Order: sequence, then C-alpha cells, then structure tokens
Amino acid sequence: MELGERRISWAARAMPVLTAIGARFDEDKPLDGLRIAACLHVTAETAVLMGALRAGGARIALAASNPLSTQDDVAEALGAYDISVFARAGVDRGTYYRHIHEALDISPDIVLDDGCDLVNILHTERTDLLSQVSGGTEATTTGVIRLRQMTSEGALKFPVVAVNDTRTKRMFDNRYGTGQSTLDGIMRATNTMLAGKTVVVAGFGYCGRGVAERAKGLGARVVVTEIDPVKALDAALQGYAVMGMGPAAEIGDVFITVTGNRDVIRGEHLAVMKDGAILANAGHFDVEIDVRALDELGVEVHRGVRPSTDEYVLADGRRLLLLAEGRLVNLTAAEGHPAAVMDLSFSAQALAVAWLARERGTLVPGVHDVPGEIDVEVARLKLAANGMEIDTLTADQEEYLHSWRYGS
Amino acid sequence: MELGERRISWAARAMPVLTAIGARFDEDKPLDGLRIAACLHVTAETAVLMGALRAGGARIALAASNPLSTQDDVAEALGAYDISVFARAGVDRGTYYRHIHEALDISPDIVLDDGCDLVNILHTERTDLLSQVSGGTEATTTGVIRLRQMTSEGALKFPVVAVNDTRTKRMFDNRYGTGQSTLDGIMRATNTMLAGKTVVVAGFGYCGRGVAERAKGLGARVVVTEIDPVKALDAALQGYAVMGMGPAAEIGDVFITVTGNRDVIRGEHLAVMKDGAILANAGHFDVEIDVRALDELGVEVHRGVRPSTDEYVLADGRRLLLLAEGRLVNLTAAEGHPAAVMDLSFSAQALAVAWLARERGTLVPGVHDVPGEIDVEVARLKLAANGMEIDTLTADQEEYLHSWRYGS
Amino acid sequence: MELGERRISWAARAMPVLTAIGARFDEDKPLDGLRIAACLHVTAETAVLMGALRAGGARIALAASNPLSTQDDVAEALGAYDISVFARAGVDRGTYYRHIHEALDISPDIVLDDGCDLVNILHTERTDLLSQVSGGTEATTTGVIRLRQMTSEGALKFPVVAVNDTRTKRMFDNRYGTGQSTLDGIMRATNTMLAGKTVVVAGFGYCGRGVAERAKGLGARVVVTEIDPVKALDAALQGYAVMGMGPAAEIGDVFITVTGNRDVIRGEHLAVMKDGAILANAGHFDVEIDVRALDELGVEVHRGVRPSTDEYVLADGRRLLLLAEGRLVNLTAAEGHPAAVMDLSFSAQALAVAWLARERGTLVPGVHDVPGEIDVEVARLKLAANGMEIDTLTADQEEYLHSWRYGS
Amino acid sequence: MELGERRISWAARAMPVLTAIGARFDEDKPLDGLRIAACLHVTAETAVLMGALRAGGARIALAASNPLSTQDDVAEALGAYDISVFARAGVDRGTYYRHIHEALDISPDIVLDDGCDLVNILHTERTDLLSQVSGGTEATTTGVIRLRQMTSEGALKFPVVAVNDTRTKRMFDNRYGTGQSTLDGIMRATNTMLAGKTVVVAGFGYCGRGVAERAKGLGARVVVTEIDPVKALDAALQGYAVMGMGPAAEIGDVFITVTGNRDVIRGEHLAVMKDGAILANAGHFDVEIDVRALDELGVEVHRGVRPSTDEYVLADGRRLLLLAEGRLVNLTAAEGHPAAVMDLSFSAQALAVAWLARERGTLVPGVHDVPGEIDVEVARLKLAANGMEIDTLTADQEEYLHSWRYGS
Repeated sequence: MELGERRISWAARAMPVLTAIGARFDEDKPLDGLRIAACLHVTAETAVLMGALRAGGARIALAASNPLSTQDDVAEALGAYDISVFARAGVDRGTYYRHIHEALDISPDIVLDDGCDLVNILHTERTDLLSQVSGGTEATTTGVIRLRQMTSEGALKFPVVAVNDTRTKRMFDNRYGTGQSTLDGIMRATNTMLAGKTVVVAGFGYCGRGVAERAKGLGARVVVTEIDPVKALDAALQGYAVMGMGPAAEIGDVFITVTGNRDVIRGEHLAVMKDGAILANAGHFDVEIDVRALDELGVEVHRGVRPSTDEYVLADGRRLLLLAEGRLVNLTAAEGHPAAVMDLSFSAQALAVAWLARERGTLVPGVHDVPGEIDVEVARLKLAANGMEIDTLTADQEEYLHSWRYGS
Repeated sequence: MELGERRISWAARAMPVLTAIGARFDEDKPLDGLRIAACLHVTAETAVLMGALRAGGARIALAASNPLSTQDDVAEALGAYDISVFARAGVDRGTYYRHIHEALDISPDIVLDDGCDLVNILHTERTDLLSQVSGGTEATTTGVIRLRQMTSEGALKFPVVAVNDTRTKRMFDNRYGTGQSTLDGIMRATNTMLAGKTVVVAGFGYCGRGVAERAKGLGARVVVTEIDPVKALDAALQGYAVMGMGPAAEIGDVFITVTGNRDVIRGEHLAVMKDGAILANAGHFDVEIDVRALDELGVEVHRGVRPSTDEYVLADGRRLLLLAEGRLVNLTAAEGHPAAVMDLSFSAQALAVAWLARERGTLVPGVHDVPGEIDVEVARLKLAANGMEIDTLTADQEEYLHSWRYGS
Repeated sequence: MELGERRISWAARAMPVLTAIGARFDEDKPLDGLRIAACLHVTAETAVLMGALRAGGARIALAASNPLSTQDDVAEALGAYDISVFARAGVDRGTYYRHIHEALDISPDIVLDDGCDLVNILHTERTDLLSQVSGGTEATTTGVIRLRQMTSEGALKFPVVAVNDTRTKRMFDNRYGTGQSTLDGIMRATNTMLAGKTVVVAGFGYCGRGVAERAKGLGARVVVTEIDPVKALDAALQGYAVMGMGPAAEIGDVFITVTGNRDVIRGEHLAVMKDGAILANAGHFDVEIDVRALDELGVEVHRGVRPSTDEYVLADGRRLLLLAEGRLVNLTAAEGHPAAVMDLSFSAQALAVAWLARERGTLVPGVHDVPGEIDVEVARLKLAANGMEIDTLTADQEEYLHSWRYGS
Repeated sequence: MELGERRISWAARAMPVLTAIGARFDEDKPLDGLRIAACLHVTAETAVLMGALRAGGARIALAASNPLSTQDDVAEALGAYDISVFARAGVDRGTYYRHIHEALDISPDIVLDDGCDLVNILHTERTDLLSQVSGGTEATTTGVIRLRQMTSEGALKFPVVAVNDTRTKRMFDNRYGTGQSTLDGIMRATNTMLAGKTVVVAGFGYCGRGVAERAKGLGARVVVTEIDPVKALDAALQGYAVMGMGPAAEIGDVFITVTGNRDVIRGEHLAVMKDGAILANAGHFDVEIDVRALDELGVEVHRGVRPSTDEYVLADGRRLLLLAEGRLVNLTAAEGHPAAVMDLSFSAQALAVAWLARERGTLVPGVHDVPGEIDVEVARLKLAANGMEIDTLTADQEEYLHSWRYGS
C-alpha cells in the first residue's frame, strides 16, 4: 500500500461514522448522477469524506482550499479513487485560483467550500455555471460571514448549509477536540509537568471549558478568567478559581487564551508574570496574546529553545515562553483535532450534502442551518460505532411528553 | 429573636445577592408606591424576597401558594415587616382560596404567582382589578403552560415574566442545586456508601448532568441512560458509561431518574435488579419509577425501614428499596435546594419585578422571557458576593468583537 | 419482625462480607467450643459480628463498651440469638462495670475489647480467669496504647491483635468512610451548597485525603493545610491549593480539621474569618478547633440555629458557625461510617478471632498486628460480594516475580 | 550560548529545588575536598546535578552509564564547568568500560552509580581504590538488587544509599511523572482522542494509579486489572471499573500495562480485542505485552504507520496497534519524566551525597535507605520553589503529639 493510501486508511479507521455513512451511500446512491465541486484542505480526513460522497454516486472535482495543507501523496491516492484532484502543496496564488477554476469546470450541482473562495468565483467569474448549482456547504465561520453579507445584499444565488455550526460540532469538536489537542500541544512543546501547576484559562466558552477540564484532569489547579458573569459563575460553581487576568497573571505557570478576542494577555500582564511562565493560544486568531508587547518587553529572544517555543528574556532576567508564536497551539505544536473529532464534523457534512440533494428546489437562497436531525443521526451512528445502545421512547412515553408539552 | 425571625435571618445569610438587591432597592425605591399581590410558598427564603420588594417601596399582600409549605412562624414574623400575610399551615381548600382573594384586595399593580392560581382568579372572579395590573411573574413550568394557553386564546390581559426559565436557573439551580440535594437525600435516607457503587442516572439534561457529576464526585461509577443520541454521546465523551435501562438495571446499585418522562424504570427493569438496589426519583413528577409495577412485584412491603425508605420484597427474596415513594427525593428526604441556589432564582424574580415596574405600559400581554441582562446582573452580584472580580472588555476589545461579528 | 431484628437485618444487608464469613463459619465451626467475652458498642453492626462468631460455634457474653451507644432493641434481639447480653442504654458507672464482670463470668477463651476496660479488669480484679484466656482483640487506638504500656511493663498475659490497624481499615475506613460521612454531616447540619465554595481541609493523612476528595467531588475549591512537607507536596500535585492556616482562614467558607492534633484552628485564625464561615472537626478528639478561643471571641452565642449548629456572633458582627461543638461531625451530625465500611473492619475482626483460635498457644503475650492475609481475604470477599472478579498469577508470572525479587 | 549550555539551562529552570541546593552547597561547601566518580546518563538533568555537587566543593569525574543516552553537546558543555567527562554517544563496549576506568582514576571518596557497573569494577578490577571510598549512591532497582546480593555475600566494602527508593520518588515520580508521560506518549504516537474511550490499566501500584488518574482526567472510562485484592478494592472504591484481563480485553480501546510482571496481555487476550485496539507498556521491562504472541497472530505487520506505532493485521482483518514495540511508551514515544520530576529525584541524590560526606566513617557497609529527613527537605524546598508556605507545629502541638504517642 502506498503512503497516501496508508494515510487515508489510518484516518478512516478513526472515522467509523463517516465510513458507515459511506457504506450506506454505496447502497442508496443518494447522490446518483450529481456533480460536486469541492474546495477543501486536501488531507487524509477529507479523502475519507470524498470517498463517502463518491460512494453515494457523485462525480467529484476537488481543489485545495489552502496550498499549505495539501498532502500530495493523499492527492495522488485520490486520483485512483476516480476523483479529479487539482491540488499540489506549495503552489503560488495564480495556480491556486486556476485549480479552483478547473474544479468548477465539472459544472457542479452541489459545491463544498471552506472559506468561500469557490463560491465567490462562481458568483463573479463563472456566473454561467450558477443556474446548474442547487446548493452548497460552507465549513468555516469566516466563510459563513461572507455568505451572510452576500445574502443581505441579495447576491447569493443558491442555498448554503453552514456545516460549521452544528450542535455536535460546538459540543464535541470545541470541547473535547480542542481540549485534548491544546494540552497535547503544550506537552509536546515544553514537556512541562502539569500536575501541581497553576494553569490560567482565559475564556470559558465551549473551547475554554474543554481546555479547563483537560488541564484539571492532568492535575493542574485551574484559574478561569471571563468577561461574561454568567460563564464566570458557572466556572466558579464547577470548582475553578475565578478572577481577572491582573491577579491571575501573578500566579499562573501556564496561560492559555481561548476567548475569540484580542489582547487578552497584554503588556501589563506580561510585566508581572513569574519567571518561566508559558504562554499559549488556543483561539482561532493569533491576536489573543499581545505578541508586540512581548517583543517590546523582551531584551533578548531565543527562538526554538524547544519545539514551537520561543524564550523572551525580560530586562529583570525573567523568562517568558511563547508557544507557536501565539498561533493555535493545538495545530502548530500538536496535530490539531484527533480524527475521531473530524469524524463528527465530516459526517454532518456528508449528510448535509445528501439533504441538499434530497431537498433540491425546495430551499431558498441564503445561509441554512444544518437540520437538527443530522446532529441526532451523527450522534446515533457514533454511539453505534462505539457499541453503545441507548433507549428509545415507548408509545406511552411519546404520548406523555406530547401531552405535557402542550398542557393538560 | 423569635424563631421566625431567626429562620429568615438564617436564610438571608445564604442569600447575599438578594440581600444586596434589597439594599439597592432601599436606596433607589424602584417600586415606590406600587402594590404587589403575591401567591407564593410562605417560607424563610420567600420572606427574604418579600423584604427586598418592601425595601423597594412596594406595599405587599402575600397568600400561600400551598398550605402545606407555610412556615407559620415565618408568616408571623413577616407581619412585623409591614407585609400583610394571608397564610396558615394546613388550611382547607376554601380558606386557601379566601386567602388569595384577601391578598388581591390590595388591588395590585404587579402580581407574583406560583402555579397560576392567583392570575386565574383575577381573570375569572376579580376582573374588576384587571385594569390596575400592569404585569406579573410566574415561577413554575406548569403555570407558564397555563399562561401560554390563555395567551393563545387571547385571554391573558397583562404581560407575565416567566421567571422559571432564566439561563441562570437552568444552569445553576438544575445542575448544582438538584445535583447536591439529590445525593444528599439518598445519603440521609439510606446512609449508603457511594464510593465504589454503580449509580445509574436516567436522563442527561441539566439536572441529570448535575446528579451524575455529584455521584461521580462521591466515588461512584456512573451509568447514564438517555433517549437523545446527542446527549448520550456527550455523556460518553465525559467518561460515563452509556447504555439502555435494560442492561443498566442488571448492574446498578442505585438508580436515579431525572428525565421528565414516565415509566423510565418499569416492571421489566425491576424484575432483573440486584438485591438491595435503591430507587430514587429526582424528576418533578412521581411518574418516572413505575410504582404500581413495584407494588405488583412486591410480595411484602416494609414501610419506613429507614427514613423515607420502603422495602419491597420480591417473590425470589430480592429486596428493592424505594425512596420517598418515588417522589422528588431531594425535597422529601433532604431539604430541597440550598438557599444559595434560591438566592439566584429569587434575585432574578426581584429584578424582574423592578423591570416590570420600569417598563409599565410598554409590554404587550403574554408570556415574556426574563431579559438576558437580568441573568448577567444576578451572576455579577453573586460573583461579587463571593469576592470574585472578573475582567471587563477594553475599548479595543469591544470594537474587535463588534467588527468580527459583522464581518470585515 | 421486631425493630431490633429489623435493624440487624438492615445492617446485615450492607455487610455482605461479614455475612459470607458467618456462613463459612457456620460450616467450618472454627470457634467450636470456645467461650468469648466481648466488650463492644451494642449496635446493629456489632450484632452482625456476634452472629458470625456464634455461627462459628462460640458461646458469647457481650457487655457494652459505652452505655450511651447501646441500642436496647438490638440488645433484646441478640438475646433471642442465644447470646448473653449485659447492656442497657444510659446505665450508671457502677452498672457499667458490673456488666463487664457479668460478661467475664463466662470464663472466656478469647476476649474482644474496645478501649481496654475488659482486659484491664481481667488483669486486676479477675486474675483467676487469666489462665483460661488464649488471646484477644482490641479495636481502638487508645486501647492499643494502654496494651503496649502493659506489654512494656511485662503485665500483659496473653496475645492481643490490634484490629484497629489493618491496611484495609486505614485505606478504606479512613479515606472513604470518613470522607463521605464528614461531608454528609456538614450538609445535614447546614444544608449549605458546596459547589463553588472554598473548603479548607486541615491535614492530608488518609482521612484528610478522603475529605478533600469528597469536597472536590461536590464542586468545592479545596485548600489543604499540612505540617508535613511530603504530604503537602502530594496535595499540591493532586491539584489542591496548599497554604498555611493563616492565609487559608481569610478565604475559607468551610473549615474541616482532621489532623489528630490540637488547636489547629486558633483565635488568630478565627479573628480573620469571613462572615458565615462554617467550622467542623473530623478528627477523633474535640481539640482541633480551639472552642475556648471561640467562646471568648463570641459576644453572643445562638445554640442550635440548625441541627448540630451553634452560631457565634463576634464583636464586629461576623458570625461563625460551629458544628457539633467541635466533636466528630460525621458521628454527631450524620450517622458515622456507612455499614459498608464497618463490614470491612468487623470482617477483619471476625477473621482475627478465628486466627487466634487456630494459633492458640503459639503466640507470645503482647500486641500483634493483624496478619496481612486477613486484609487480602477481606478485600477478596468484598470484591466477590460486589461481583468483581480479578486476575490471579499464572505459574510463569509467579516464577518471574520470584526470580526478579531475588535477582538474576 | 551553545546548544549544550542552552539545554542545561532549560533543564535547570524546571529544577528549582536542585538549583537551590546547588546555591546552598556553594555557600556551605559540604563536599569540600572530596573526589566523586559518577557513572550516570550524561544528560542535561544530570549536568544540573553535577553542577550542584561541583558547587559543593567536590572534584568530579563522570562516565556514561549508557552510551545511547549521552548528549554529546551536554558532555562538552560540562567540560567547561571543570568536570572531567568520559562519555560519547554510541561508543562500543570496550570504550564504555574504559570510560568508567578513566573516571575511577580520580580515586574517589564517593561514587554515584546507575546500574552497579562502576561499583562492580571497583570491587573486582580496582580494589586498590576501595580503601579510599567512604560511600556511594545507586539509582536503579536493578543496581540495588546486585548490591544486596553483594552484601549478603559479604562482598560490598562500603555503604551505598539506595536513592531509587525514596518516599518522594515513589509518591511523585511514579504517580505524576509516569502518569503524564505515558498518556503523552500515547497521544504523540497515535493522536487518538481519549475522551469517551475505554482505557484498560493493568496494575494499580503507584505508577498504575498515576496512569489511571491521567486517563480519567482526559475523559476516558478506566478499567483496572489487578492481582492484589486490596489494590483492586482500592481501585473500585475510587470509582474505576475492576475486572480480569479476559473481559477487559473485549471492551478496551487502549491498553496500558504497568505491573512489573510478564505476559499480562497474552495471546488469549489479543485474540478477542476490538479492531483498532492500542497496546502500550509503561512497565520497566518489555515483557508485559506478549509481543511474540502478537507476532504469531499477525498475518501482516506494518511498521511505523505512525511514530512508534506498528500495526498488526490479524487473520480476520482486525488490526492491533503496538506502541514502542512493547517498550516503555513514555520514554520511547514521549520524552520520559518531565524535568520537574527529575528535580525531586536528583535533589534527593545531591542531599544523599552530602549526608554520606557528613556521616563518613559512621555507616556500616551495605545498602542504606535514604534518611527520611531528606525526603522532607526535598519536599520542603519544592513547596518553597512553588511559592507555597505551610504551617509548622506550635510548642503546644509538639507536646500534644508527643504525649499522645507515648500514652497518657
């Protein structure tokens, strides 16, 4: 078996739900005769998704949504699966856009996008293809924002499902995926022992909760900072210490930002930190730790004292350790979400494509939520893949719930 | 100090948020000149709420929403606070309704209800008072259901705030209040050691999650049953064993139902349980454990082998222990929610009354949600009462969040 | 069934190990023909122990080791089991000692003691019986100290097994029994919500560890104070906050002493505590909280504001709540160890008696440890009672371990 | 700064206790005039130890205890510290022994050994140096076994402190160091998500307990297997599922052996495992998983499907993943103990050397335990390094404890 195939096979084994959906698609052919143009990261996990859609009967053309993430051996292996791939690691901007055009040449019924570039080209340079397109999916928050703007201007010409925003993703990706991979990244970068350490987690949304749970589970005392009193109170009632970043900065050994906001750790905080404090970001953008303030405070910088670790020496001799230059520590210092988590997101995406195929012509242009039953279906399949059976309602129970909901 | 006053004082010390709101009301007099008719459980915690509203300038008449829960010494002490109380423990049905009428005689501007009896009388027997009423609050789910029916029939004549449904209540009351008091009830009833036991929690909503966490925290192995695959998967990812009630019935030492549905533990489950299994319900109604099935299976019943504990001997000699006759174990075998939890709910209620007073004339008749800022305010005050300070957004951060939300 | 019998039956169901030992004794009759004089608390759990020894073939005379703990209905029920009981609740000192003499009249082969009073009388007033006695057990630390003194003076005339000091007891009684029952006592006394509270645990021995784990499991932030740096470091590495009682006194909501030392909470600490702080002791003697200092600081004392709760009002208005007058909170405010824990201790005691019978004549006078195999046997039976099977060594593994231990 | 120096500096920052001891040694010169020959792994952490001993006044010659672990850049940097180093990565057997001889040429007063090779050469080939040696330390269990054999044969000519066996090491190294690094290794090797997985931990000694805690802390359901009923019961009471390896093999997703015994996972267990099961060993020797049985069952083996991961395909298509070829997963797939843990062990070693120096002439030949006060001192310094202050006994408390211990 070649390396590309090996990688896909490895990913597939951690993606039993998507594999099961692929098997079902192979029988039911819900995408029979449809053409799909996709613009996604060309990785082993994506390959498993493509395989499922192909099994469903679709013809597929795939371009890369980012040339840096393309795994060339996977791209090559996908060719053997009868999928047209237009992607190569490290190509220039021109080639990147040409690849998207080449994928669009399939004249898609359905499009899969990751950042809205393909949809944008469709609406500007390839408007001739628009009438054929009956729907699409978008996998990023940024892409969804662009789509909503298009919608508000009346520009979007077909329905797009925001596959980023499923209940499953929020509950599972964010909490369990980010939680584990963030701590994993910090251990790989620093090999620091977390037991007995004070870990400051900035932000107590789904991601922050996951990070805090894993830090606590590794033996740390966890301090939570928040700006929302309700979330802060929730953290306190879960047994975390809650305070502002000011006092937290003085006692923390490890700092993890995961707020979605900028400048959460600022110069005033850096100024009072302990020698050896570790700074990591698990929020999407690299704005949460004020790296410029750190640059100004550092009289000396040693890059790469450990993998993904830069040491800033302050004027008074204290040393602060910045991981991954303030970028996502779980992607940079570890390997991002485990495939088991991608299994949930990509399964929702596969089911969303089948739903789009089924509902062709009934959906208005605009951004649509993933239907709730897809979340339920993905969770159901995941439980089954793990060998867990759960109860179903009896007829009496159905009736009881129904009567209760509508009053007596 | 008399016993009634002592009780109120004890409750007040565990209710620092409501106390703080009372102090603020005393300064700002947001209810100045308003008349309030309330129909609530006449307990020490309610007395603290009444005190806060009184401090805000309201004149108050209070009837009992249930004669069984009236604490006569508290009722007496409230008289001394210049609040008219129409309540006595153990009165008959006629007196109960007469008391509500007497409270309504105040001709209220605002009404507080707990089950919709007072609002119902207002709309049927005291319609002359309706024009004076500018709004109300309702504290129970059942009451809210009745109000929604009235609304859909066009019968409700003023706006009512559903104080039962705040984010704070769902997050805190249900999870932390029910969680602790349920386990507390089981320990008081049976003095059983939970470490090493298998505890089966049926239902993984907010309450179930709280019960599962506390059982785990006391050293039990926790099994979760659910009918919603998404919640079931969440339980599995939090490390709980997940299965149907069938297999769970065979391995459980303690069973706790908290689903909101009927017949969660049925004859088929009782039939396979271990000798000595303990059955407790933490759901609102006593329908979750099928007590009739247990009655049929039991060849002998020993009532009260321990406080709130009945022993059912089955034909083969196995003994099952039913707590609190299948009714709410945290209320029957323990003391219900700790006052610290009521502090949150009643504080939201006090702020909702002030909001109603402020918005008089601007709200349409019907059921209204508690405004989100009240949740935030209650949480903020609770944190302050616990000496916890949290961060606030800088101007840059405000702008960043704003720009992000609306795209770049 | 009478109340006494009902109580014994209830206790027996939570004591499957002792019950299993009783059944085995009933077959093997390891105590056939032996006479036992016992001086123990006359409770339902003790009755189960007596039943097991009786089943083993012993004739038994039982006196109370403390007239306050005697359950008269249990004493009566035991009579029906063919056990001579000399005990009644609330008797005076003279009757107490007469009862011990009456029990000794059986002319025992083996004695069971709980505090060394019976053994003491044997060696002073009933020396005629000494030659018949082949051994005894002692269940308390205090009793063991007295026995060691007797041994060092050459006074002790037979071997006594210190059943208090088994590995099982230290690991299980102290950690899981004290842990749960202490928190149980605090909840019964105060109904305080522990989630989000700061609980200060003084002492991190086996008991303290158990208390800290249960407090954490109920959602509290736990602070540990210690005087042993190794234990303190262990607490820190388990994620607890570690500090001295000075700073802890300022931030704690609930204080639990479990050190075995005096004056752990002193006037200087009481002086800085928060309004509403709760003080509880889980150590054996009531010396850990300096109650006299509290008496001096309190300008007003309200006894019994809650069950087992006294409120001390300080000069500045702060109120401190002392539980159980500083005595063992798990015994006074709750019900002490769950029977499941007594099952382990009393099973070790039953097996120790059988071991004494078997080894008659081979043991020198003095204090003997419980043989390690008794711990193993008790644990093995407990696992079996809970339906847990564990592995045994293969022949290869036995050999490997053996060769490893003695070098290659 | 050169790489070697950089590495040492990185290690030193995570070793504040050893650094503090070095600073104290620098003032007190407890090793003034002494010559030390050491045979240890030549790593950055060892360099920090050497630095502390050098600061104490010793002259030092260092040979490698294993040529594979020598970090050449560290060896070079140590030369600059005025320490004679005889070590180079990858040397042959002859050179290895020559290096030890060269280190011995210093004619040591004290020796530090790690596996007993240096001590062995001293007693066989360099007996002329024996009269000068006043004591030594040995850091491995294997070495201690060899030394005990020498002692029993009367061959050992000086006292040796078994620095491997301190209470601190057992409590901290084993539990927190092995716990974290084992899970770290599994995540680096497989990137598997642990939340929701069933992790089987074989063995519940100090190491197994640490591994179980970390697995639970990462969201796994943990199953414990044991052969000692007391440890098994302890695991059960901590909420773990306890069973034999037979049933565990059928339900586990990840298996971690840490028993100190051989063949813990055998062919019969491999035969029933789930597709995708992960096998890892955290015990000292690579005998715990029966790799030969796996070789026989595997019809295909893919080496290196992930870092440190080999995939065995069984006849029925199931795939088992063996990590690190069954060797210590925390050393092979991760980086072994965090330096923070080595800080404790090496600090105990430094203090043991100072103790040997102080007690010269008073200790008999043979294996000696590390004095208890060294454990206490190391823990005390570690707490101080983490900014934690703890209580000390008052005079009254000292007296109370004393009087209690010796009776009243």
